[in-house]
Amino acid sequence: MSTPHGAIETPVFMPVGTAATVKGLTQGALEEVGAGILLANTYHLYLRPGHALIRKLGGLHAFMAWNGAILTDSGGYQVFSLSELRKVTDEGVRFRSHLDGSEHLLTPEKAAEIQLALGSDIAMVLDECIETPAPRKVAEAAVKRTTDWARRARCYFLECTKQNGDPGQWQFGIVQGATFGDLRRESAQQLIELDFPGYAVGGLAVGEPHEVTCEMAEEVTRSLPEERPRYLMGVGRPEQIPDYVARGIDMMDCVLPTRAARHACLYTSEGRVLIKNARYIEDQRPIDPNCDCSVCRRYTRAYLRHLFAAGEITGAILATHHNVRFYLDIMRQIREAITFGHLANFAAELRARYMAGPS
Amino acid sequence: MSTPHGAIETPVFMPVGTAATVKGLTQGALEEVGAGILLANTYHLYLRPGHALIRKLGGLHAFMAWNGAILTDSGGYQVFSLSELRKVTDEGVRFRSHLDGSEHLLTPEKAAEIQLALGSDIAMVLDECIETPAPRKVAEAAVKRTTDWARRARCYFLECTKQNGDPGQWQFGIVQGATFGDLRRESAQQLIELDFPGYAVGGLAVGEPHEVTCEMAEEVTRSLPEERPRYLMGVGRPEQIPDYVARGIDMMDCVLPTRAARHACLYTSEGRVLIKNARYIEDQRPIDPNCDCSVCRRYTRAYLRHLFAAGEITGAILATHHNVRFYLDIMRQIREAITFGHLANFAAELRARYMAGPS
Repeated sequence: MSTPHGAIETPVFMPVGTAATVKGLTQGALEEVGAGILLANTYHLYLRPGHALIRKLGGLHAFMAWNGAILTDSGGYQVFSLSELRKVTDEGVRFRSHLDGSEHLLTPEKAAEIQLALGSDIAMVLDECIETPAPRKVAEAAVKRTTDWARRARCYFLECTKQNGDPGQWQFGIVQGATFGDLRRESAQQLIELDFPGYAVGGLAVGEPHEVTCEMAEEVTRSLPEERPRYLMGVGRPEQIPDYVARGIDMMDCVLPTRAARHACLYTSEGRVLIKNARYIEDQRPIDPNCDCSVCRRYTRAYLRHLFAAGEITGAILATHHNVRFYLDIMRQIREAITFGHLANFAAELRARYMAGPS
Repeated sequence: MSTPHGAIETPVFMPVGTAATVKGLTQGALEEVGAGILLANTYHLYLRPGHALIRKLGGLHAFMAWNGAILTDSGGYQVFSLSELRKVTDEGVRFRSHLDGSEHLLTPEKAAEIQLALGSDIAMVLDECIETPAPRKVAEAAVKRTTDWARRARCYFLECTKQNGDPGQWQFGIVQGATFGDLRRESAQQLIELDFPGYAVGGLAVGEPHEVTCEMAEEVTRSLPEERPRYLMGVGRPEQIPDYVARGIDMMDCVLPTRAARHACLYTSEGRVLIKNARYIEDQRPIDPNCDCSVCRRYTRAYLRHLFAAGEITGAILATHHNVRFYLDIMRQIREAITFGHLANFAAELRARYMAGPS
């Protein structure tokens, strides 16, 4: 996948940098672990520091001094999950900021405008996110609205491109349809007509069983053109990632490696390590003996455990560094497994290691 | 100054790594900014994770994966400032842990024993810390007890050395005497008789005017042998450091660069920058245009301001990196100024820049 900020090997995992930073990692550390593309949250950046400021300062890449690629979400999901007093109409979604209670209206056009100001490499259209499990009627209405909004967003984006020249940004559509296979296919079909350069699968991994997530992802990827990137939003656990890739998913993002790290949960090739556990007090091994990251090359589990026990910020830094590196290495192994035709083996192996549960 | 973990150019500033970590910096970052020696707190490490564990894991250097030098304080100051229910007798100081309320007795021998277990390059003797301003009687008694304790600590240390071989550790005495010049000289004289390889000045910079700190430091350094390192504990502000050096101080430590960084106060060659201030919202300059650290080479003030406004951990990381680098660079400039014989000029210049107050 070729972006204005470098070529990205797929399948790819995007670390989450909500407020123009991956919590606990410097941009130098992100380069060191091999991150080629980050996700940043439009909702957060719109509210603080504001997209107008970021545009004035040269766009998000210049603002955060990140030369890799950036995907921005539309802000929709955060409006639905973080803000108060949201009201959805055909026009858009009206909400109050979770920061200061100020009122805002996010429309498909506004979401596109904000992301053009941010200057991300990939922008997402505004979609309607619904709670799951959803009654069929609700899911149907959300698909209809999502398609209407996608059409408006696409028109707005193409109009801007016509007037201001190519912004060097891709706009992706988002397939909805809850857990109804036919609605998912219908949603995909309607978006394909709008000719997006890439497509996302939204509204999954929000509580439904993993099998259902996989089934829906497959319904969607089967309906989408093979040569365009397919992005499953908000996933996933290490042992689930190969399953999504096997179903044709090219891109993923998740807060798990970074959030878990801050809560002392480390991912390793031997399963999860809850590093605060007393069993690690004297453990002189690295976090993961099979990891070559700078944290595993230098520090012991005993030291990491001490840092977390003492509530030291350096614990979060080292753990986040390792976890992100671990996720990116899983992706490397998946790409390798695909090349050699044994993705299924790799998936089974990973699952077995993680089925044992955390230690 | 030559330690088992490398030669240290003096005058030197030691970043504070209380619990075997400089808050917000990895050991790699500490190497990058050029730190040659850190201070670690015996009180904290004794309580958590415990000196016995650290000895078992190969000593503090191995435990925290730090190949530079380490100075450990005696724990006395923290007992006096952090713990509850402390009771000082000739034997030592009895106190309750600020972590779990457990009762402990810290004696001169115990403080030496803990630091031998930690395996620091430089260990400090236990001294009696008193509140200032102190009545003369109280200061006299504290000097007497500090000398008694220093003698016991020295005997214990030399006995251990005799029995177990050279631990590769220097033990420093601590001069007390509050703000009484004659008591300071007396304290120094008594310690010199114990033949320490280095001496510290304790109980200063605890609220008295800067001129008094300087005066007392000078009283002490004049009394001490020139060829042995003189360490002024717990200082100081950037603009004060040249004054101490001018009075013969070789070593300093202070939480200021790291603590201020976490509170959004940045030190620059043009004075202090309170980065949360609205004036930096659009400021595209680096923190310090005259600094060559990796933070100043990459990020803008506008970005740093955003990170602090959003409460992002990465703000603390970047600010700490810069502030520690700034302090170490001040020390480099001081060493250079000494070589060229214009330390007084440098001191005046630095003072002028910082007199303007924070911006």
